[in-house]
Amino acid sequence: MVSAETLLFVDWGTTNRRAWLVGPGGRVLEEHADARGILSVEPGGWDAAVAELRHVFEDVEPRLTLMTGMVGSNRGWADVGYVPCPAGIGDLVAKLHWVEADAVAIVPGVCLREPPRADVMRGEEVQVLGAVAAGLLPPDGLVCHPGTHTKWIEVADGRIVGFRTVMTGELYALLSKHSILSDLLAGEAADGPAFREGVEHGLGNCDLTAELFQIRARVLLGEAAREDAASYASGLLIGADLRAGLGRTRHDVVHVVGRPDLTALYAAALDQTGRRAERLDGDRAVLAGLQRLAETVL
Amino acid sequence: MVSAETLLFVDWGTTNRRAWLVGPGGRVLEEHADARGILSVEPGGWDAAVAELRHVFEDVEPRLTLMTGMVGSNRGWADVGYVPCPAGIGDLVAKLHWVEADAVAIVPGVCLREPPRADVMRGEEVQVLGAVAAGLLPPDGLVCHPGTHTKWIEVADGRIVGFRTVMTGELYALLSKHSILSDLLAGEAADGPAFREGVEHGLGNCDLTAELFQIRARVLLGEAAREDAASYASGLLIGADLRAGLGRTRHDVVHVVGRPDLTALYAAALDQTGRRAERLDGDRAVLAGLQRLAETVL
Repeated sequence: MVSAETLLFVDWGTTNRRAWLVGPGGRVLEEHADARGILSVEPGGWDAAVAELRHVFEDVEPRLTLMTGMVGSNRGWADVGYVPCPAGIGDLVAKLHWVEADAVAIVPGVCLREPPRADVMRGEEVQVLGAVAAGLLPPDGLVCHPGTHTKWIEVADGRIVGFRTVMTGELYALLSKHSILSDLLAGEAADGPAFREGVEHGLGNCDLTAELFQIRARVLLGEAAREDAASYASGLLIGADLRAGLGRTRHDVVHVVGRPDLTALYAAALDQTGRRAERLDGDRAVLAGLQRLAETVL
Repeated sequence: MVSAETLLFVDWGTTNRRAWLVGPGGRVLEEHADARGILSVEPGGWDAAVAELRHVFEDVEPRLTLMTGMVGSNRGWADVGYVPCPAGIGDLVAKLHWVEADAVAIVPGVCLREPPRADVMRGEEVQVLGAVAAGLLPPDGLVCHPGTHTKWIEVADGRIVGFRTVMTGELYALLSKHSILSDLLAGEAADGPAFREGVEHGLGNCDLTAELFQIRARVLLGEAAREDAASYASGLLIGADLRAGLGRTRHDVVHVVGRPDLTALYAAALDQTGRRAERLDGDRAVLAGLQRLAETVL
């Protein structure tokens, strides 16, 4: 099937891949998700991996294929670098990396250099700048993108002017899979008194590496319920995440973009700081971003 | 071989086991270390695991076998509980758990209950109280026992009056084995400018989960040398450990007990806070502790 009118959007992460076949006006015709993250692609296997995706969509030949995420990292198809802050959507377009002229491009990441601070993002910039362009986010504000590596992103005049990464999701995963806390963290974390107590401690001037061990000690001594441990630990790490991300910012509203289950927990935690969370589904944001980039290119 | 005069001391941890055959006056006749930690012992296999040890020492039948460490935990031979703070060596003797009357005993741990704070130790109490009894540590002071779970122990009048656990070594191991930082942390950490910069950040009011990601970002952007990452990360976690452990204490001297490679790094970090570290080898401390307990029992 040849379709001159369709676009193929790919959000290609480390362990997973999502793709959307999009028609005129940004209408999603079909979507697909699989576990073919970049680490599963052999060197030299990128053309085949993209052909596989096209096959999923009945061998479509899209007018344009746009890719975002870790596919543009030093472990991906090509290391497409980073655009420095402040970065607007025009800066991403200017630095698109064309792996096939006028047909297949990878979006660059965004970096921050303020020695000794340094930070990088790859993927979130498309969501945030796209959502701003589509009117889903305001041109000035604070965006929180929770996940493996939570991003706190300051947007001003529609550009990313600064950001900070917090290793919250990854640390929780390490603790629940491999640490002495793993049996305690086997359950699901949920909002409630234990979660909120954790948030309170994490927001405070706490010593995180000491607080983590306390989770085990309290259960061993019968001072806390075993079934509350996952929610408390999640609250503790999310509280510390908020502390790092909010810093000295003065925003009353935080725009939380991501998976609905995660944004709900962050909204609950933000509520404890007296701030209001505006939630936006991450899929809508990434689609808006890739659509806006495509429109600029075509 | 029957030897009515010998004692068998065992420091039985989660993954490793050390044993000493001790003669009159506490003289070490022979020592042994293997990887038969408590997790390698099948349920019901404890008698055999101890017989195995005796066999290593030519089937000795010691007058007394004293065991300390995780062998007394809920995953060990018997859950022998904890003595509450303040705890002296007499409290450990009073609560020895005899698995074989007058012949084989497991030393209890020590716990702290000051809600919402709670903490536990199992093994370090023998080292600290034994070293105090043997005159290797003063009866009043602050002891730091670095490791997987660093313990900061306040001693007053020869008793443990309070302590705090910090999950430093375990967190470093999780990050270097399983995280996005693992390739950067493959090298050995050593004292030097990168280590000291990490200590400085860790001692400060930093957001640890954000600082950890910075390690990767700085290397990606060429702001820091890849080969410095392990030392910097180690410094960062040890700095945060000191911050948690020193808290509001006013000790000019900290007694650092443990493996010489680790105590050296902690001594360097303590030096940055203007405190003096007195180092004591952990093996000497555990032997002193078990010897003192044995003398009290016999």
